[in-house]
Amino acid sequence: MESQNKVFIATSLDGYIADRSGGVDYLNTYPEINTIDTGYNDHMASIDALVMGRISFETVIGFDIPWPYNKPVYVLSNTLTQVPDKCGDQVTILSGTIPDVLKKIHSDGHTQLYIDGGKVIQDFLKHDLIDQMIITIIPVLLGGGIPLFSESEVSTKFECFKTQLFLDKLVQNHYRKAVNA
Amino acid sequence: MESQNKVFIATSLDGYIADRSGGVDYLNTYPEINTIDTGYNDHMASIDALVMGRISFETVIGFDIPWPYNKPVYVLSNTLTQVPDKCGDQVTILSGTIPDVLKKIHSDGHTQLYIDGGKVIQDFLKHDLIDQMIITIIPVLLGGGIPLFSESEVSTKFECFKTQLFLDKLVQNHYRKAVNA
Repeated sequence: MESQNKVFIATSLDGYIADRSGGVDYLNTYPEINTIDTGYNDHMASIDALVMGRISFETVIGFDIPWPYNKPVYVLSNTLTQVPDKCGDQVTILSGTIPDVLKKIHSDGHTQLYIDGGKVIQDFLKHDLIDQMIITIIPVLLGGGIPLFSESEVSTKFECFKTQLFLDKLVQNHYRKAVNA
Repeated sequence: MESQNKVFIATSLDGYIADRSGGVDYLNTYPEINTIDTGYNDHMASIDALVMGRISFETVIGFDIPWPYNKPVYVLSNTLTQVPDKCGDQVTILSGTIPDVLKKIHSDGHTQLYIDGGKVIQDFLKHDLIDQMIITIIPVLLGGGIPLFSESEVSTKFECFKTQLFLDKLVQNHYRKAVNA
């Protein structure tokens, strides 16, 4: 199967994935959203490994929950050396350029990748290496925070091929990289 | 009828209304969009006056076309004093705070307002005075430019109540201010 790098993420209406403090309270703007299926399970079923940055990794580790992933997770970090026991044996720390990292992950046999975390997504976008994005917009203006997209010299065309309302309040847009991008 | 301040605008996928040079070439990412009805006529029929900033006004003036509006236009500017002949007699220059400006426009009998131009939209949002936004996302990453939303201390909740695909490539999301915002 052709390799695919996929994003599944929420942003505020003004494009932030976290507020100025790095918090994600805005995800509960309409808490009913947490009681319905917004496609996360389908997304998880479609991938065979996750790629995230150190900050996302440490955020997940910090949650008072069991390790939530049952698929291999690659953590991109130049500083991490150890993985907490709670993660089991499915976490691999990688460093290097995005193309190098991808080569390693592909050589492990994983081609359908969930790319997560602001900086990692931005790095993949700068290499024009994001194939799909499912973006759920939480319609609140945060006025500042950590943006999903960064300033960049790379201009990539996508196509929105699906859109869906949830609760008549939130919208989820599905994008794929344009064929002639 | 209850007064309504409405936005009808396009942005890039990363939230810019114009590129780093102030240009809007990105609007032609998928030029077929210019051949179909994306709701602009309905929007124009729903409003009874436009409110825009000097920069938007001068941009429209600069186009090599007849004055395109057949409804009153209020231009917010502290520096403009004259209106070119080509605009006819339907352009009024206003200065002052947003609430003052609105009071004047309402006293002229106009309550359904099309709020246009980056800075004016941002100023209205900072006063929590935008009621509806129809945002068409052109799915291209510009990597920089003039953002639709600015850094702000005002956090406003909206509801996305309608979404629509065009050409299976672009998406238009309709927001209204949340009742309990």
